[in-house]
Amino acid sequence: MKTDLDRIMEEHDLDAILVTGAAQHNPAMVYFTGNGHLSQADLVKQRGNEPVLFSNSMEREEAARTGLATRNLSDYRFPDLLKQANGNFLKATIQRYQKMLADLGLNSGRMAVYGMTDAGAAYSIFTGLRGALPGLEIVAELDDSVLLLAMATKDEAEIERIRKMGRITTQVVGQVADFLTSQKVKDDTLVDHEGYPITIGDVKKQINIWLMELGAENPEGTIFSIGRDAGVPHSAGNPDDPMKLGQTIIFDIFPCEAGGGYYYDFTRTWCLGYAPDEVQSLYDDVYSVYQQIMSELKVNRPCPEYQRRTCQLFEERGHATIQTNPQTVEGYVHSLGHGVGLHVHERPWFRSNAVPADSLVPGSVVTIEPGLYYPERGMGVRLEDTVWARPDGKMEVLADYPLDLVLSIKG
Amino acid sequence: MKTDLDRIMEEHDLDAILVTGAAQHNPAMVYFTGNGHLSQADLVKQRGNEPVLFSNSMEREEAARTGLATRNLSDYRFPDLLKQANGNFLKATIQRYQKMLADLGLNSGRMAVYGMTDAGAAYSIFTGLRGALPGLEIVAELDDSVLLLAMATKDEAEIERIRKMGRITTQVVGQVADFLTSQKVKDDTLVDHEGYPITIGDVKKQINIWLMELGAENPEGTIFSIGRDAGVPHSAGNPDDPMKLGQTIIFDIFPCEAGGGYYYDFTRTWCLGYAPDEVQSLYDDVYSVYQQIMSELKVNRPCPEYQRRTCQLFEERGHATIQTNPQTVEGYVHSLGHGVGLHVHERPWFRSNAVPADSLVPGSVVTIEPGLYYPERGMGVRLEDTVWARPDGKMEVLADYPLDLVLSIKG
Repeated sequence: MKTDLDRIMEEHDLDAILVTGAAQHNPAMVYFTGNGHLSQADLVKQRGNEPVLFSNSMEREEAARTGLATRNLSDYRFPDLLKQANGNFLKATIQRYQKMLADLGLNSGRMAVYGMTDAGAAYSIFTGLRGALPGLEIVAELDDSVLLLAMATKDEAEIERIRKMGRITTQVVGQVADFLTSQKVKDDTLVDHEGYPITIGDVKKQINIWLMELGAENPEGTIFSIGRDAGVPHSAGNPDDPMKLGQTIIFDIFPCEAGGGYYYDFTRTWCLGYAPDEVQSLYDDVYSVYQQIMSELKVNRPCPEYQRRTCQLFEERGHATIQTNPQTVEGYVHSLGHGVGLHVHERPWFRSNAVPADSLVPGSVVTIEPGLYYPERGMGVRLEDTVWARPDGKMEVLADYPLDLVLSIKG
Repeated sequence: MKTDLDRIMEEHDLDAILVTGAAQHNPAMVYFTGNGHLSQADLVKQRGNEPVLFSNSMEREEAARTGLATRNLSDYRFPDLLKQANGNFLKATIQRYQKMLADLGLNSGRMAVYGMTDAGAAYSIFTGLRGALPGLEIVAELDDSVLLLAMATKDEAEIERIRKMGRITTQVVGQVADFLTSQKVKDDTLVDHEGYPITIGDVKKQINIWLMELGAENPEGTIFSIGRDAGVPHSAGNPDDPMKLGQTIIFDIFPCEAGGGYYYDFTRTWCLGYAPDEVQSLYDDVYSVYQQIMSELKVNRPCPEYQRRTCQLFEERGHATIQTNPQTVEGYVHSLGHGVGLHVHERPWFRSNAVPADSLVPGSVVTIEPGLYYPERGMGVRLEDTVWARPDGKMEVLADYPLDLVLSIKG
């Protein structure tokens, strides 16, 4: 939780955090700014102090709206710094960072850096800054980032934002179901009132519009894949594919607040019209594992335990899993879930190499998404909900929606 | 142009380029992949060779759809590398990069890195990789990136994608004009048929929906600001503000292809109902400078010349400019334009510290956007179009739209 940040920084012996980049689609920045349209900014949080936001002069009013302490980058007179550096943009940029940090009394200690930015820029700027300020150690955090550790548990305000995204997500899923079931059928294929096939592209376009109408967006796209593509977990689906009856459709939707804020993550598997026996049987296996795992979730247990348990349950049902064959592309081939917040995928992790912090604890928000994939048999099934581990230790699915496989066509 | 890349790499003594990150909203990656849903990938282009795309096993079909040569990251068995590295994620990641590069015969020379990724990850991975491969120099490019130099001129296929975005942009701008002018007026404020004020939030929501319907999105947001906010160039506008007659509205819209591809950039300034004299006069100054600069654009001249010329023209009309007062927040306070492509802002630059490459040459696509800002007088005016310098040396606005200031209310 954000209120844990100073404590986590102390545990990691960090004196400061620097976040760079935009205030949209940049989780580390949005974690502090909340919202707002800043195309480029820097934020410095020193341990024990409130964060300070450096923004461009042109975006000063947007910066002020975040409610954070702000500084104006134009006070550092970049054109002059550039002149002093003989036009070397990198040197001038490093010089400006030195001055910004000096103004905060920060020229030594250990500082971690975050934020979505260009890899080359980050490498060159922070390598240069380290050279220029030998007393300042720039800390190489990757998987064990203090921000991800803080983000791994959510406060009530964050839960409400995620819950609202859950309501929007399930509303749109309902709209998609209504849209599909009200079409006509010709040769086992959905067609519109003029007889043209409904394609995945048509459905995705509607999804985008409906999300937008409700104040959400899906920067990571939506998975809506049918048949063999449904058997490839992260195939997003071929836009030209028609909607055939009796084939598995995996509909995995993970929108966020417009502008790039909190996410929700949700999957249903549908068969239009009817489900062939082998599809129903595959679905039944996933459904029973989903229900079993949901019933076993408890706080203060490591998430990877549930991944191992899921593999065990699928193997009992005769499916290959990555536990016994890490290279398998049939059976159960991915992780049971992941944290959801400002990233669609974040801590806690369920993978086997997880650290102790990857436990289900009060405040965790995680997906539970068992699935089975048989691309060569032209099918795949996944069921996913987003679950909050409440302060009272109970588990709560943040948005309810039926798990049904078959969508009967009304048209 | 992409076909210039090998030549530019040679001029910069680069043996390879490594691009990391997603294949959405990541210009360096999209430049090579074209499109497609890849949540995390690495691409290596060696000079004189076609690029190679490394993707996750789960996204192998999406990777194949790019038409590039592909490799499967799972062949590098990350779990084993992690075990060998005693669970150190960073070390295992660096080890995997070493193996990937070795497979391409790349363990020495000069390699530039690009791609939207976490700043801390980039810093730590590439610092570590440099340590692990002393013969491989990781090149610190910032403002003089070979990719930005290649991207600075567009081929015909890119022009068609930008032109299509221009058609979508102006269509949506027309829809917004129709929406506004068909409302009712009460107390000099636009109201809907039930008498409720139309707000900036309402307008922006419609913009997002209309863009989405046409296959576009606006990840960077839209500027729709009125009155004093219009006098602050990059204020995005306050969602709760009502639409008052007789006030300047700056409508700056810069959408890209859905999923994060090519952009268009466009601004009009509107006054609903009527324009007060001081607004009309401000508009006239911007309009005449816009027309003058447009008439003077020629290929093979440095872009900063046009910035200086614009300052001169505004100063002749009695306005402060950043040329004589870099800190001014009144008058002409920004750059005349910028390149547009996979970034909404890219080379060529018009700012004074531009290098020789920042010239208008055949294939350039740039915005021309003079503006005047008087926040204390509650107004601002900007006019912007996106212009292509054609192979025949002629300039072409890529999407036509009237420049009119006043929108008469029909309702």
